[in-house]
Amino acid sequence: MYRSHTCGQLRIGNAGEKVTLAGWVQRIRKMGGMSFIDLRDRYGITQLVVDDSVSHELNETVEKLGREYVVQVTGVVAERSSKNSKIATGDVEIKLDTLKVLNASVTPPFTIEDESDGGEELRAKYRYLDLRRGPLKKAMELRHRMGQETRKYLDSIGFMEIETPFLIKSTPEGARDFVVPSRMNPGEFYALPQSPQTFKQLLMVSGYDRYFQIVRCFRDEDLRADRQPEFTQIDCEMAFVEREDVLVTFEGMIKSLFRNVLGKEIEGSFPRMSYSDAMKFYGSDKPDIRFGMKIGELKSDGRNGSDNIDLTSGKDFVVFDSAEYVGAICVKGAAFYTRKQVDELTEWVKRPQIGAKGLVYIRVAEDGVKSSVDKFYSARELEAMANRVEATAGDLVLILAGDKKKTQEALGTLRIEMGNRLGLRQSDNYAPLWVYDFPLLEWDQETGRFYAMHHPFTAPKPEDMDKFYSNDREQIAQVAANAYDFVLNGTEIGGGSIRIHDSNIQKRMFEVLGFSAEEAEYKFGFIINAFKYGAPPHGGIAFGFDRFCALFGGQETIRDYIAFPKNNAGRDVMLDAPGMIDDSQMEELFLKSTLKK
Amino acid sequence: MYRSHTCGQLRIGNAGEKVTLAGWVQRIRKMGGMSFIDLRDRYGITQLVVDDSVSHELNETVEKLGREYVVQVTGVVAERSSKNSKIATGDVEIKLDTLKVLNASVTPPFTIEDESDGGEELRAKYRYLDLRRGPLKKAMELRHRMGQETRKYLDSIGFMEIETPFLIKSTPEGARDFVVPSRMNPGEFYALPQSPQTFKQLLMVSGYDRYFQIVRCFRDEDLRADRQPEFTQIDCEMAFVEREDVLVTFEGMIKSLFRNVLGKEIEGSFPRMSYSDAMKFYGSDKPDIRFGMKIGELKSDGRNGSDNIDLTSGKDFVVFDSAEYVGAICVKGAAFYTRKQVDELTEWVKRPQIGAKGLVYIRVAEDGVKSSVDKFYSARELEAMANRVEATAGDLVLILAGDKKKTQEALGTLRIEMGNRLGLRQSDNYAPLWVYDFPLLEWDQETGRFYAMHHPFTAPKPEDMDKFYSNDREQIAQVAANAYDFVLNGTEIGGGSIRIHDSNIQKRMFEVLGFSAEEAEYKFGFIINAFKYGAPPHGGIAFGFDRFCALFGGQETIRDYIAFPKNNAGRDVMLDAPGMIDDSQMEELFLKSTLKK
Repeated sequence: MYRSHTCGQLRIGNAGEKVTLAGWVQRIRKMGGMSFIDLRDRYGITQLVVDDSVSHELNETVEKLGREYVVQVTGVVAERSSKNSKIATGDVEIKLDTLKVLNASVTPPFTIEDESDGGEELRAKYRYLDLRRGPLKKAMELRHRMGQETRKYLDSIGFMEIETPFLIKSTPEGARDFVVPSRMNPGEFYALPQSPQTFKQLLMVSGYDRYFQIVRCFRDEDLRADRQPEFTQIDCEMAFVEREDVLVTFEGMIKSLFRNVLGKEIEGSFPRMSYSDAMKFYGSDKPDIRFGMKIGELKSDGRNGSDNIDLTSGKDFVVFDSAEYVGAICVKGAAFYTRKQVDELTEWVKRPQIGAKGLVYIRVAEDGVKSSVDKFYSARELEAMANRVEATAGDLVLILAGDKKKTQEALGTLRIEMGNRLGLRQSDNYAPLWVYDFPLLEWDQETGRFYAMHHPFTAPKPEDMDKFYSNDREQIAQVAANAYDFVLNGTEIGGGSIRIHDSNIQKRMFEVLGFSAEEAEYKFGFIINAFKYGAPPHGGIAFGFDRFCALFGGQETIRDYIAFPKNNAGRDVMLDAPGMIDDSQMEELFLKSTLKK
Repeated sequence: MYRSHTCGQLRIGNAGEKVTLAGWVQRIRKMGGMSFIDLRDRYGITQLVVDDSVSHELNETVEKLGREYVVQVTGVVAERSSKNSKIATGDVEIKLDTLKVLNASVTPPFTIEDESDGGEELRAKYRYLDLRRGPLKKAMELRHRMGQETRKYLDSIGFMEIETPFLIKSTPEGARDFVVPSRMNPGEFYALPQSPQTFKQLLMVSGYDRYFQIVRCFRDEDLRADRQPEFTQIDCEMAFVEREDVLVTFEGMIKSLFRNVLGKEIEGSFPRMSYSDAMKFYGSDKPDIRFGMKIGELKSDGRNGSDNIDLTSGKDFVVFDSAEYVGAICVKGAAFYTRKQVDELTEWVKRPQIGAKGLVYIRVAEDGVKSSVDKFYSARELEAMANRVEATAGDLVLILAGDKKKTQEALGTLRIEMGNRLGLRQSDNYAPLWVYDFPLLEWDQETGRFYAMHHPFTAPKPEDMDKFYSNDREQIAQVAANAYDFVLNGTEIGGGSIRIHDSNIQKRMFEVLGFSAEEAEYKFGFIINAFKYGAPPHGGIAFGFDRFCALFGGQETIRDYIAFPKNNAGRDVMLDAPGMIDDSQMEELFLKSTLKK
């Protein structure tokens, strides 16, 4: 062993002990004939002191040191004269006897400090140096803790971790697979799993009624910001359960993570919200309920759970009159917003990402209301609108109009933005939420068929069975799935469903999706077959582990919570991967590139 | 929830309780106007009783039941009149009130019993049914326990589990990579990792001084029996350590697994053996030390740790005279072996897998020795040979001759065979062992270059540095690696080494391996570069998790310890993977098959 203690271990009680430490040189300072070295390892920083006049040899070695040199030192622990209360070892320093350079370092391309001077790209290339920095180390530690605590909890309630294969078969339904040519089976390909979905359902058929796995998944998608081609999932499935059992079980897991990882006690049950309420009140299927600012409908058609109301029509304001839907949010205490600020918000909602046509406001003051549509609506009419969102003096009401779903979503995005601006979205404040009763199917105009919103094994809600078997496309479109999402602070962290275990319902599902019997057999034959041999009722959930960790760390981006992430082009810039392979490798796989050289 | 209790839970103390169970119908028996149903789930089997005369409706449902139907029942727990002491629930039965079929089952293609009537191939195709059988369930449970306990132990001593990427870069050194074409980077490929070797070393450079991961690895090899293209590894690395630290740390882990998984206490330190002693005495680099039967040298050259001895030459027995090496094992108490049995053994050692030219025996009795080479050697000479292997009356000495290494290995294989025949290799008797000081390099005649026995980052033993820098190929060939294997019952379960952290030694290693600076840079550029920034001394080990589990389960084959294994052609016969992919998928990847259609 190269050390007797780590650099985070020594305290005042160790004073007088002779110790050996090893680590990296973080900083060197010279002061009044003394050299001070901050020695760093995973556990902390310990100050080393060399009296320059004592040993010529030691002094010479110190002279040669540079940042990030790896050294082994021996010395005696002493109380510091000027203590540093910011670090755990701040009361002591080591009076050095010997210092041995274990390895030199060239000068790092950026500073290894909590706030580095290195740009993102440079740090990605030297990821192994970036990982030395405090924030990344904390992220890795948090992730490790999350993994251990997840396993500990699930194990404690009888879940078994069962590893499923990575070299599987390509199923051309859903997202794009990464494929792996098989040399031993020329012309054939494996696929990397997008999730162990079918395997966990097979395990239910096999009788492993509480399964989980923390497992890598792969999706060859065009990468939106903050997506990774490989990502990790907490994948879970249970048999002989209904929705309530799944929700209660994983509420237990999530609470135990809050308790054991963050030291936070979440009291009571998590709130629950239907998909239609989420859209109606938050304009999102993943509402951030850390703050209110609920959407109020000023004009809506009463369908899919919305109110049948109209506070806006017939006053010659064409924008509202021609709109399918008008909705508002109340920004508490924001009546002080200047014209310029409102104009800027108007530009903001008109950006293509949001796509609103414009923004109407009502400013509520003690002495009445002011609005950009004063000339169409009387004060009373405007007050009625403001009342819908419970605005009181000092508040600013923001109104959008247009197609219902698009406008709800635009209001949802505006709500989040205003929440940010008002500081209502503190990262250390956690608001968990279950959202349920999602639509089962989505009609695609282009291909003229239904697609499963989740996947083709999601069960319809029992009470919607009549609609599910109906011949009317409108009716089928209204079938709700027995599905649920776990949402934390406006981010979807988990999603799952009760699965179809009845082969007749499964057959109907494939029919609704427009698969012929042959297609269904080709794509899902083994699982359809498995379900003939006594499939139990079952359901499950999967959590996005990378994002779960990031949120627990108070961050929105996942990249810092993955040791070696890829960039938006799917490249690992540190490895410079992917790369070319040898011609001989191509030949062995019976493959040829169609690219011009 | 579909049940109040599992099928393994109810005891005599529950008598009188009204319960709800769910599970699979294992067996149905009719007896004296009663129906008895064995209901099975993951947790056990509970007997259900229906009095056929009580409810017509219930009786009708029972009539329709078949094997593997999934049912939900309610009833009252009662004491059995004829108890079954073999199962935990054997004191009770459930007097049924209701029985609901949750799902029917077609007749399974084989019996779901501990001993099934299904052949291996059939069971592989219906793996999800095979997994219902007791032995596979036990294997999955053991594997789950092993994983949990490994993590718990390593976490408890400060190891961090850090996930490394699966989509990496192909390194054409070592075994063959599986590759993954990248759609977003046309013409380029990722590779699947053969192990996280370089990543764990980078993590040491990053300062994470105790890393582990239970991780899938991939190797596109022609599959020998009992190898899998994807396999799981307990992958570990430590910084600021020497060999002793690594061995002691993982001895702790292994002991804790023995204790917490098998309830076995392994006393004292694990025995250790050098590679040369292992070859000399056991003819194997992974000796099974559950039994003695050590090899004795009758003629050897004194090199690589062997004795300088000759008890056989000059007696006109050409086979021994012309042999480089003659060695023997003593089979205790096997003097009773008949001529026929010895002949059969002779044929056995002549099989190409072993490749011995013949077998010489000495039978030791109270009244002297008998041998197949009586006419060349005197009784005294034969006794001298027998004495080398400490044979006493009643023993059988078996002698092989030929090239040294080949003959040692043949003796090693013969030793294992005799151990099996004599029942000396009980699967519940565990003999752990460290083997160390392996050769660093292996000369390949064909390509005329050295190959790393382990991998190019393995450190030479410090005391062999002069040889390592020598220009003499013979000298270089004798350099020992600072490497070690963990061997359990004659199976290599783990292997590791102290790594090179000095960039000059690494440079020399690449030179010895015959890489140009450009080649080294192309293949290992990022890690060579990383090592310039303060790499700490480090070392590690990786355990084959599948085999570790199999051995803990008392089995030698790993397939039952993997939920969804592949066959020897690398196929998953359940999924029928690999398979063809769509032309559109090929086009997106800019690939064309060179196979004739």
